[in-house]
Amino acid sequence: MKSLSKKFREGGEVIGLVPTMGYFHEGHLSLMRKARGECERVVVSLFVNPLQFGPQEDYHLYPRDEDRDAKLAEKEGVDILFIPSVSEMYPEGYATFVEVKRLTEGLCGRFRPGHFQGVTTVVLKLFNIVKPHKVYFGMKDYQQLKVIERMTRDLDLDIEIIPCPTIREADGLAMSSRNSYLSTEERKAATVIYRSLLEAKETYRKGETKAKVLKEIVGGILRGEPLVRRIDYVEIVHPETLEPLEEVGEEGAILAVALYIGKARLIDNILLREEV
Amino acid sequence: MKSLSKKFREGGEVIGLVPTMGYFHEGHLSLMRKARGECERVVVSLFVNPLQFGPQEDYHLYPRDEDRDAKLAEKEGVDILFIPSVSEMYPEGYATFVEVKRLTEGLCGRFRPGHFQGVTTVVLKLFNIVKPHKVYFGMKDYQQLKVIERMTRDLDLDIEIIPCPTIREADGLAMSSRNSYLSTEERKAATVIYRSLLEAKETYRKGETKAKVLKEIVGGILRGEPLVRRIDYVEIVHPETLEPLEEVGEEGAILAVALYIGKARLIDNILLREEV
Repeated sequence: MKSLSKKFREGGEVIGLVPTMGYFHEGHLSLMRKARGECERVVVSLFVNPLQFGPQEDYHLYPRDEDRDAKLAEKEGVDILFIPSVSEMYPEGYATFVEVKRLTEGLCGRFRPGHFQGVTTVVLKLFNIVKPHKVYFGMKDYQQLKVIERMTRDLDLDIEIIPCPTIREADGLAMSSRNSYLSTEERKAATVIYRSLLEAKETYRKGETKAKVLKEIVGGILRGEPLVRRIDYVEIVHPETLEPLEEVGEEGAILAVALYIGKARLIDNILLREEV
Repeated sequence: MKSLSKKFREGGEVIGLVPTMGYFHEGHLSLMRKARGECERVVVSLFVNPLQFGPQEDYHLYPRDEDRDAKLAEKEGVDILFIPSVSEMYPEGYATFVEVKRLTEGLCGRFRPGHFQGVTTVVLKLFNIVKPHKVYFGMKDYQQLKVIERMTRDLDLDIEIIPCPTIREADGLAMSSRNSYLSTEERKAATVIYRSLLEAKETYRKGETKAKVLKEIVGGILRGEPLVRRIDYVEIVHPETLEPLEEVGEEGAILAVALYIGKARLIDNILLREEV
């Protein structure tokens, strides 16, 4: 991979990277398409990164299908599907970790200690190996996006981070590899997530700006669904600092939720801002 | 700096970096000379990095003389003396830190919590800004050298770390910007450090391999000097893992000390190995 990147760069080609954990869905494919449209070379990395899973989390359960992924990537015109092994990424004696403070403290960071350290560490390694000019991230993982943006700026990397809209199923559920954990019944119940976000957004549009009220709308709807077995958070935060807000102001806000349905921890978010 | 590095690289020039905190002495100059002999472009960074000083340490006391440094660098044929400001390196909102575990736990890391995190963070930033092919570090800061080597490998950086021998005064004292803190009397007393290391090395050469005995030789000599007001450690460690050793084995060992004379925290080390 390194020698290919070097060759691409020496040839003056713009390299786009789509970092993934595989088991591609339309969300991943939309990132590949966007990269394909903007870059001479598109690299998709596929690495289920053990470092970003907690000891009680679903690392071993995480769905994998490299053959199918390879076909899908090829269909999207991806130049390179980069699939390093765990022992290549973290050989014996590995000891280096990257951490972004503050932005990682709230939201998912509070419920998944070490998760973002795992994400920033692997993403920095992928950046250094692939040497991309542009990197594509989905907005479903909004906190991840902001953390990576911060790291990229702080570490003086010459990389453009490109946020891409969340892709949803026809019934509104945000695409996620973890949706595959859901039974038919759970899958149906999962539509409650986006429905609750839209309801809060509608109330915001009608003039309600108090975070407490908007969060309670989401919480009320989610608690009404018996298959939602645990809610990690319903939060309204500043779109850049991710600090909790009491009021949705001029800069808007991100309304974000994380919850469990069956074995799946699902996250979603929506932007509250006047012009959108 | 970034656009210059880009230009150099595009021109196929090898970039050498000598990262420093300034107040150049022969140690720094020897690194510059080595870089000058091996690289088309020599960049010396001068940045007294607040992140690697503890709250009770000598950040504000640290000696500075940019005009003198500029003249010395020019005399060595350095192409660029890169002097970023603190607010350029750590602008408001800065939040990203790099940590190397294990290697940073013993020796100076035990006595200077956060020090190596400050070092690895700033060095990674300098690497990303200057984009060097080769980087030159002195072996006086042996633990720093090993930590940087580890980080460079772990983060998949295409950079060669080049260790350079410690440069000493005529009486054996390792060159250090912090030597400037010493009074005439303290300066004289400071020769005890290298003397004690040489004495232990001589005993090792004669066949003694027990770390305890060798450390006691050093400790005894140091404690015999009244101006040594505190000894942080006298350690014998594996040259690569930096794990404390009970016995100097085939792979040799580093005998390292850190102590205070007056306001100055001084460190030094020596390699114990058969062939050297």
